[in-house]
Formats: sequence, C-alpha cells, structure tokens
Amino acid sequence: MAPTALSERLKQSVTKDALRSYFAEFISTFFYVFAVVGSSMASRKLMPEMAASPSGLVIVAVANAFALSSAVYIAANISGGHVNPAVTFAKAVGGHISVLTALFYWVSQMLASYMACLALKVTTVGQVLPTYTIAQEMTGFGATILEALLTFALVYTVYAAGDPKRGALGSIGPLAIGMIAGANVLATGPFSGGSMNPASAFGSAIVAGSFKNQAVYWVGPLAGAAVAGLVYDNVVFPAQTSPDSTLRGISDGIGL
Amino acid sequence: MAPTALSERLKQSVTKDALRSYFAEFISTFFYVFAVVGSSMASRKLMPEMAASPSGLVIVAVANAFALSSAVYIAANISGGHVNPAVTFAKAVGGHISVLTALFYWVSQMLASYMACLALKVTTVGQVLPTYTIAQEMTGFGATILEALLTFALVYTVYAAGDPKRGALGSIGPLAIGMIAGANVLATGPFSGGSMNPASAFGSAIVAGSFKNQAVYWVGPLAGAAVAGLVYDNVVFPAQTSPDSTLRGISDGIGL
Amino acid sequence: MAPTALSERLKQSVTKDALRSYFAEFISTFFYVFAVVGSSMASRKLMPEMAASPSGLVIVAVANAFALSSAVYIAANISGGHVNPAVTFAKAVGGHISVLTALFYWVSQMLASYMACLALKVTTVGQVLPTYTIAQEMTGFGATILEALLTFALVYTVYAAGDPKRGALGSIGPLAIGMIAGANVLATGPFSGGSMNPASAFGSAIVAGSFKNQAVYWVGPLAGAAVAGLVYDNVVFPAQTSPDSTLRGISDGIGL
Amino acid sequence: MAPTALSERLKQSVTKDALRSYFAEFISTFFYVFAVVGSSMASRKLMPEMAASPSGLVIVAVANAFALSSAVYIAANISGGHVNPAVTFAKAVGGHISVLTALFYWVSQMLASYMACLALKVTTVGQVLPTYTIAQEMTGFGATILEALLTFALVYTVYAAGDPKRGALGSIGPLAIGMIAGANVLATGPFSGGSMNPASAFGSAIVAGSFKNQAVYWVGPLAGAAVAGLVYDNVVFPAQTSPDSTLRGISDGIGL
Repeated sequence: MAPTALSERLKQSVTKDALRSYFAEFISTFFYVFAVVGSSMASRKLMPEMAASPSGLVIVAVANAFALSSAVYIAANISGGHVNPAVTFAKAVGGHISVLTALFYWVSQMLASYMACLALKVTTVGQVLPTYTIAQEMTGFGATILEALLTFALVYTVYAAGDPKRGALGSIGPLAIGMIAGANVLATGPFSGGSMNPASAFGSAIVAGSFKNQAVYWVGPLAGAAVAGLVYDNVVFPAQTSPDSTLRGISDGIGL
Repeated sequence: MAPTALSERLKQSVTKDALRSYFAEFISTFFYVFAVVGSSMASRKLMPEMAASPSGLVIVAVANAFALSSAVYIAANISGGHVNPAVTFAKAVGGHISVLTALFYWVSQMLASYMACLALKVTTVGQVLPTYTIAQEMTGFGATILEALLTFALVYTVYAAGDPKRGALGSIGPLAIGMIAGANVLATGPFSGGSMNPASAFGSAIVAGSFKNQAVYWVGPLAGAAVAGLVYDNVVFPAQTSPDSTLRGISDGIGL
Repeated sequence: MAPTALSERLKQSVTKDALRSYFAEFISTFFYVFAVVGSSMASRKLMPEMAASPSGLVIVAVANAFALSSAVYIAANISGGHVNPAVTFAKAVGGHISVLTALFYWVSQMLASYMACLALKVTTVGQVLPTYTIAQEMTGFGATILEALLTFALVYTVYAAGDPKRGALGSIGPLAIGMIAGANVLATGPFSGGSMNPASAFGSAIVAGSFKNQAVYWVGPLAGAAVAGLVYDNVVFPAQTSPDSTLRGISDGIGL
Repeated sequence: MAPTALSERLKQSVTKDALRSYFAEFISTFFYVFAVVGSSMASRKLMPEMAASPSGLVIVAVANAFALSSAVYIAANISGGHVNPAVTFAKAVGGHISVLTALFYWVSQMLASYMACLALKVTTVGQVLPTYTIAQEMTGFGATILEALLTFALVYTVYAAGDPKRGALGSIGPLAIGMIAGANVLATGPFSGGSMNPASAFGSAIVAGSFKNQAVYWVGPLAGAAVAGLVYDNVVFPAQTSPDSTLRGISDGIGL
C-alpha cells in the first residue's frame, strides 16, 4: 500500500493549486533574497572601506522588514507566504502541510534564492556577493543559539498572524512579520548576521562559493522554527480546532 | 465603423469619472516624484562632497516607500492608484483599461513628474536636479535587467493588492506596494538607481536636461511590468472571473 | 438675532463632546510637536559640530512620520485627528466645522505646541531649542511655495483618509497621513524645514524667542491646506452627500 | 472572609487562560527587550569609539518601533499585549485587571527581560551590556519628568488602541503603539534614554550590574502610565460601559 499512498500524496502535491503555491513561494523568496542580499551589496558599494557601519545596518534591516512584509503579503493567500524554509519546516513538523509538499516548497525557495543571488552577481559586474558571517569573538554555538532565538520570534509571529482568533488584527499580519524580522536584524546584524532563513544563507553561499559557518544558518533557524511552531500549536492555541483542517487547505497561513 | 468606435471609446475616456481619474493620477504622481527627487536633492545638499552615502540611500529609499504608499492610497479608489506609467502599461497590455485611457494616464503622469521636478528646481534656487544614473562598471543591459526585475516585483505586488481574493489583507495593499518599492531602492540604489518608474526618470531628465541612459528606465520598467501583469493574470489568477469586468470600472486596482 | 445665534453656536462649541475634542487635539499636538522638535534636538546633541546631517534628516523625518501616525490615530474618532491648525483651517473653509470650533481647536493646538517645547527646554537643561529655518540661498517666497505644496499633499491625504468611499482602506488612513508627512520632510528638510504645521513652527519660535521667517510657516501651510480641502471636496468628492452632514458630527475626519 | 476571597482571586489568576496570558507576556517582553537592548549593543559594536551617534539613534528607535509593534501584535488577543510593567500598572490602577494578575504579569515581564539580556550577554561574548543613562547635564528629576511624559503618550495610545469606539481603525492599533514608542526614542534617546519600560531598564541593569538612576525608569514610567490610564478612562472614555466588563475578560486590550 505504501507506494499507492505515496503516489496519492504525490498527486496532492502536484495539483494546480499546489503548483501555484510553489510558484508563489519562488516569486516571494526571489524578491526577498534579492532585497536582503542586494541591500548588503549596496551598503558595501557606498562605503567600500568599511566592512560594516551603523547606516549599513539600517539599510539591511529596513530592506529586510520592507521586503519580507511585501513578500509574505503577495503570497499569503496562495502558498501561505512562508518565504523561508524554516517556516515550511515548522509547518511540516506541526502537521500543517505534508512532508512532500514541504519538500517542493524547499526546492522552490532554494532555487529562488540561488537565482536572486545570481541575478545580483551578474548584473552588478564585479561586486563581491556578501555571505552571512559571525562576529570574530563569537562561537558557532553562540551564533546558532542567537539564530534559533531570532527564528523562534519570527515563526511565532507567523503563527500568530495566521491564528484565526486574531480577528481584525489579521489584516496587518504581514507587517508584524516583516517588522519582527527587521528588529531582529537591528539587534544581531553585527553578531550572527540575523539571517533567520536557510534559503538566503544557502543561496548567497553557493553563488559566493563560501560555505563557512553554513551550519549555523541551518541548525539555528530550523530548531528555533520547529520549537516556535510546536509551542504556538500546543501552548497558545491548544483548545481550538486544529488549524490544519481541510477547510484552510494548502494556503494555511495568514488569517484570511 | 472604426471612427465611430474610436469616438465611442474617446467618450468613455472623457467621462466625469475618467477625468477625475486623470486628475488623481496627476496629484499622486506629482507628490511621489516630488518626494523621490526632492529627497535625493536633500541628501546631496547635506553631504555636498559625496555623490552617494549610506545615509543618503536610507533617505531616498524611505522617501520612496512612504511617498508611494500614500500616493497609491489617495488615488486607489479613484484611478486605481497607478502612479507609474509602467503600471498603466501592464494594465493596458492585460486589457484592464483601454489603450486610450492608458494614454491619458501617461500624459497625466508625465506632466505631473515634469511639474514636480520644475517646482523643486525653481524653489530650491541653484540646486542641481539629480537624474537616475547607473554605476560606472555596469552595462546598460545589466541595468535594464535590474530595473525590469524591480518593476516586476512592484507590479506583481500592485496586482496582488488589487486581487479580490485578498480579503482582509486588501486593506494594507498600499503599504505593501510602498514597502517593496523601498526595499528595491535599498537593494539597487547605487547600481541602477532603483527608478522602476519611467515618469520619474523622464521628468527629472527633462528638467535637468540630460537624457543619458534614459532608455534603461523605459525598456526595463515597461518590460518588467508587462510580464508581471501577464504572469499574475494567467498563472496566479487564472480561474476567476476576469478582473476587468465592468463592475470594477475604471478604478480597477486596490481591492475595495 | 446675531448675539443669540452666536451664543447658540458658542453652546455647540462647549458641549461635553466638543470639550473632549479640544482635549484630544491638545494631547495629540503636544506629543507630535514633542517628537518633532525633540528629535531635532536629539540629532543636534549627537552631532554638535554639524548644523545638519543626512542621519539627522532621517531622525527628524521618521519621528515626524511615526508621531503623526500615532497622534492622528489616537484622536481620530474624538476630534477627527487634525493635530495641525492648517488642517483645521481647511475644514473651517470647507464648512466641515464652524469657525468658532476651529478657533477652539487652534487654541488647543497652539497651547499644546508651546507646552511641548517648554517641557523639552526645561527638562533637557541648556539645549538650544531649534526653530524652522530656510536654506540660505532660498527666498521666503520660494519657501512659502514649498510649504504650501507639502501641506497640500498632507491635507489632501487627510481628506482622502476621511473619505467614506475608502472602504477597507479607511483603516490605514493615519499611516498614510504620517507617511506623506515623513516623505515631505525627507524631500525638503534642508530647504524649508518641512514644517507643514503652523503650531509646531509657532511653539518652537515662542520658546526659542526667534520669529525669523515665521510668516513662511503660516502663509504656506494655510494656503496649501485650504486649496487641498476645496479641491478634494469639489473635484474629487463632488457628487456625494456633503461630508459635513450632521451624522458625522464634530469628529468629521478619519473614516470610521 | 478575606483569606477565602484571596484564594478565590488566586484561583482566577491561575486558570488556563491566565497562565497562557503570563506566557504570552513572557514571550513578547523577551523579544521586545532582546531587540531594544540588542540593537543598542549592535550600534556600539559598529562604532566602538563613539558612545552615541545619529545612526545609532535610528537603529535603536526603529528596533523599538518594529519590535514593540510585533510584540503587542502577537500577545494582543491573549494577554492584551502589555509588554511593559507600566502598562500593567495602569490597567491595575484603573481596575481593568486584578492586583494579583498584575503581579503575575510583572513577574513574567521582569523574568523575560532578565533572560533576554542574559541571552545577549552570553552569546555575544565580551560585549558590554548597555544600560539606560541620562545626559550628563540633566537632573534625575528632569529625566523622570521626560520618562513620565513619554510613557503617558505610550499608555494613552495603548488605551486608544483598545477602545471599542475605534471601529475599523482598531486593526492598526499595534502599529500606532510601536510608532509612538519609536518617535519617543528619537526625541529623547540622548537625553533620558527613552526607556518607557521598567522591565527593560531593570533587566539590563541586573545583567550589567549597574543600578545607577534606576529610580528614574520606575517612578517616571509608572506615574506617567497611571495618569494616562486614568485620563483616558475618565476624560476621553467616560460615558460608555466600563471596559473592564467581564465580557472582555483577561485579554482586555487591543480592540478585537
């Protein structure tokens, strides 16, 4: 029966609506990574002699907040607006989407991030593509903890925004998600980079050809995301009907 | 019959509601261009010795985000809040507005941009009016690709904000549109200028008297906008009733 | 009969709801001016050697945008959220509120601005209280035109936000109002100061004891505001029932 | 009867919904303090030679605005989204929550702030944890007045956001709250620090081991908050049914 079940599940993962979801994740992740990595390149171009500056932190953090708000917004009622493999991981761990669908989401997100970094690299001719790095004095373990905390906050906010109990507040969910991301970058940019997103870390690492500390940007965000999802589902949202009910379908996410 | 059809169409393009739409586009585009070009002048005045600085990028990007959000907001339920010939082009290509109406929109937008730049030039006495430029090491082709990508993101967001499936999220549409514009400027300001708008590029070029690389700011945005509109209509939004139904009228746009 | 009519009107201007409106204008204007003038002082304290800097412009513009959004928000359903004698002037010219009520609004706004500047002056011990100034090379006439244009944009947005045709977009009205104010400051801060508000210009001038160019910050904003109100009422909003209908009462303003 | 009444009250303070509220306050306050204190550390790391800079003020203020908006948002329909012992104090003084519940809120908020500062201290290895300080030329009394004024504005906005008369504007309440906090920091950062929150002042003081001027950050905010709450309840909101009616329950707060 297993193969049958698998092919059945596969069929659910390639419906027209599902394909549209993967496409929406691709578009949103492409432009989110484009803004985040691009703003870091723009900041370096304007101050070539400095590795980092306070104004550069403002540039990257505001780009993150603005781009994530819009990216979540445009995909919210199609794919749920994950824009982040860590969010997809949490949704799969919590049983909101199937593992197979999650895999397709991941592929879309990774491909989008890679292509966004490639587009930046090619068009800006000769600019160095920046990768996420951790402060010299920090340990990889400390940076992983930081990234896990940041991603916990982000994914908790994603769950809160998708909570049907939000009522009228549901309409500003994408802004709350973008804002917590921006605040997190302002707090930790010079320490762990404030990635919170394995896709952006992976895409820039591939195109730049440097995988140093890559594990930090996978272990931290995935762990933080999974814990946030489980906490929200079981502590904050326990008494209600499960949010993965069939009524909400594949676009389980921002409260619509 | 052709002349009759034309005069019929002309009549539809000069109704009271249509004239009000052109007026709304004029007002919104005037103040959007005023903020974008003005903020660039303000940044130069405060740091005369530098052509560009990280703080200057923040100034221009935040002005773009704030001004576009407000400009789209005030015109949304009158003209649809295009504020950009590229958006109008996409709407005409997709059949949401007639070619004749699009032409009137363009005239309003161009005139508004020219007058905004003229007002800045005259009142600030002797300040240089900045035009959009591309980084020295970049090719015109690369800059065109960049502007096309940025405008794709902007117009895709405009379509998403006007999508009746948005539900409660519809109310923050103008903010999502302004934010993606701001994020795009942060990512590409020092590379292609981050115009995404032929009107602002044209108005500042006329008043400054320099049309260098002007083609970049027409070919890129128009191409990106048209593709974004077609993709949204045909891939993301295919199964529903066409959004150019007569019920939505000329103010087809932000979900009301 | 005139005295009777006057006393009748006076009675309408001192009802419980009217008094509450004056109080709301006082609170909102106090904290708006506190943020705008205070942020200018904070910027000077951090860079004492510079009269103005790009980061300082960001500080003042973002303070303006954030504070005005909140100030309009908290007063919106009580007094209509004017927070600005120019807005009140436009509403009186357009017949939305009586001249007498407008006078009470002005007194509340002026008093609030004066007290906010005094509180800053007293608590920060020895800091210079900044006043609005125009760039050396500019004429008073040019600055007046600039301030009139900026205030036109602001008041047009205030009217658009209060337009009952807004529908769902009505809920983000205070944000659109704050954002256009912030964008305007970014565009004109180093030129005319970007006041758009006679109260903030007057309060800081009194406490600082310098009334140089004060006329610029009265003539420009009042003229721009009145024109914006008339244009919106007669061109954009002509066919509907007058917004000063008794149903909307004294809190005519943000769409509720 | 007193012990019985106490045990009865205690029972009400440890229901499942009440415990969930304390948890929500913990999560929100943790990430708010993390962003505020972290952004101050990030700013110092990027400009080690300067105690304060204009860009640093932008970093801290924007982090405050973004983080508070999100923190209030995610807790709004669970605990009311206080995220601040001063807000809780005002709600207790006004009779909206019981003293016992307020104490549990305070414990959650204090613990969260302490743990957020500890997490920053441990992971960033050797960075100095900043505490709130007042400008050299200012008196403790002046700083207390400033903090009281700032917190008045913040708590007044919290009450306005929770006012059921808000209607459609209710949905942007958390943004208005975050924005007034950001504007206040821009206005007073270099003077009193712009804390408005005893929890963030206390947590950073404990971890840094310096309690200098701590009283300023307790007396000012608590006094300002209590006055704001009483003013809103009695002057602005007097005629309606009391907002502490049983229908609104423990999550009395943002308008849902």
